[in-house]
Order: sequence, then C-alpha cells, then structure tokens
Amino acid sequence: MEPVLSEAVAVLGRTPSVLREVLQDLPEPWLGRHEGEDAFGPREVLGHLIHGEKTDWVPRMRVILDHGDTQPFVPFERRGYGDASRVPVTDLLDEFETLRKENLAFLASLSLDASQLQLRGRHPELGPVTLGQLLATWVVHDLNHIAQVVRVLAARYALAVGPWNAYLGILNR
Amino acid sequence: MEPVLSEAVAVLGRTPSVLREVLQDLPEPWLGRHEGEDAFGPREVLGHLIHGEKTDWVPRMRVILDHGDTQPFVPFERRGYGDASRVPVTDLLDEFETLRKENLAFLASLSLDASQLQLRGRHPELGPVTLGQLLATWVVHDLNHIAQVVRVLAARYALAVGPWNAYLGILNR
Repeated sequence: MEPVLSEAVAVLGRTPSVLREVLQDLPEPWLGRHEGEDAFGPREVLGHLIHGEKTDWVPRMRVILDHGDTQPFVPFERRGYGDASRVPVTDLLDEFETLRKENLAFLASLSLDASQLQLRGRHPELGPVTLGQLLATWVVHDLNHIAQVVRVLAARYALAVGPWNAYLGILNR
Repeated sequence: MEPVLSEAVAVLGRTPSVLREVLQDLPEPWLGRHEGEDAFGPREVLGHLIHGEKTDWVPRMRVILDHGDTQPFVPFERRGYGDASRVPVTDLLDEFETLRKENLAFLASLSLDASQLQLRGRHPELGPVTLGQLLATWVVHDLNHIAQVVRVLAARYALAVGPWNAYLGILNR
C-alpha cells in the first residue's frame, strides 16, 4: 500500500500550525518536561522536528532519487538539535514552519508520480525501504510527536485528576 | 495538588482550534475509523466532546456547587452523542467550539477562588472527588482525545510505513 502524495501532504502541511495552536502562548509551567528530566518536552520535540527537516526527510528523498538503494541513509540523530531548553517556543515554531514550507515546496517541485513512490532506498538499520514508505513515515512521525506533546502536557495533571486517573489512558502509557 | 484555574482554562480554550487545525479540510479518506469499526474516529471523538460539553463538565460543576457531595453526578454516556458518522466534520467542530466558549464563559462567571477548587462532589463510580480534580480531568480528557484523533490518523498508514513501524510508538499502542 502506497500513500497518496496529496493526502500525505495535507497532513504534513498542517503540522506546524497544529503545534502552534497547541503550544503558542501557553503559560510557561505547561512547557516543561513532565515525563522526567531525560524525556522530551514540547521544546525538545520542536527541536527534534526542526533537525528532521534539515537532515532526515528531504535529504533521504534526495538519496533515493540520486542513488537508489546503493547508498544507505545517514543515521538520524534524535537529539541532533542540541539543547532547546532555553529557546523560546515561538522561535522554535517559526523555524519549524519555515523549514517545513521549504521542504514541501521542494517535494512539490519534484512532481513525483505514483510509480516513483516505489523507488527503493536503503535504511542503515532497517534495510530496504521505498520512497512511499519514507513519505508515509514522515506523516506518522509528525503525528507521533503531536501525540507526544499532548501526552507531556497531560502528564502535568497526572496527580491533579485524582481518582479519574483510572479513566484517562493518556496518563497510563 | 490543585490545578491553577487560569492555566487549565488556557488549555481548555484552545482545544476546539487545535482540533480544527488537525481536521478541517483534511481529505475525507483520513476521517474514517482507522482503528476498527467499533472504535472512535475523528467524528465520534467530536460527538463525544460535544456531548461532554452538554452533559458532563459544567453540569457536574453545578452539582458540586449546588449540592456538594450529597448528590452523585449523573453517569456520563460515552456514546451519548449518537451516530456522528454522517455529520460534516466542520459542523461538529463548529458546535464543539460554540459550546466550549459558552462553558468557559460560565466558568469565568463563577469567579472561583482557589479554596473552592477543594469543594467536594461524588462520582457515581469513583466516589469522593473535588472540583479541582474535575477541572483537571476536563483538561486531561481534552488532551486524551486530541491524542486519540492523532493516533487514529496515524493508524491509516500503519502498513504504508513498512519497516519503520518498529520506530513509531503511536502505531503500537
């Protein structure tokens, strides 16, 4: 099953504004790392997404288009952004939005057809993958991190909900 | 630990626009129930949230303020909205936004002070709860369902991501 490019782009294009709607101007106490000091908080997620725009999705597409599966992707560094803990959330949101727009403009410029989504690349750990799988993963990766941000916010009230904790799956993952 | 009213309201006030940003104008194939026919899809979540605005959060606050813990809450019916499967998503988003605004206006009109958040009510299953716990639960319940919507969207690409499935926690919950 290959993703439909226009449907994937419909999700990818809105991730920056979804995260802006979730996070911008939220009172600062919400913006910490409420799942523990080693965990990601909203700023770390945004830094990770920014780093992905720079080094993961589009660069890997280029590798597939230019070299097929003869050249494995460069491994992606989850914490490659560095320390986001003192960066204003608005700045992170702005940078992510700008990079995503540029990357979707590049993707549009490729005018990929459905058959090209079957082009093969090579993941350094997972082995053979296709351009369509990379595109679908870009989408699900966005959704994964939106859900993570929302889960981190919820964790702040894990005690405040009292006995309702039992009904709230988001506090028990 | 009691929630701070203004901080709780900061999250509650943005849930309708977050869900609008996630769902409005999304191509229809995304809007189904991708975790199974009995599961919630985006429309069912919106219907559930609408029903909660009408029958759960504010009505329970009123019970606590008017009757304390002498009168248990009316049990909440998860699927009380009925069949949302043919309702346009935009209509559901509009109705949820309107009801949420009205309920937050009512909440503001109460001018609750911090001590009132310790007022006690009685949940029909969970027993003694406080107004502050109800408020915190309203917030976490929103976040739970935002995460659910995002997870349902992701599930559509569970196969399309191929071997990357292993890295995407949202597909394995």
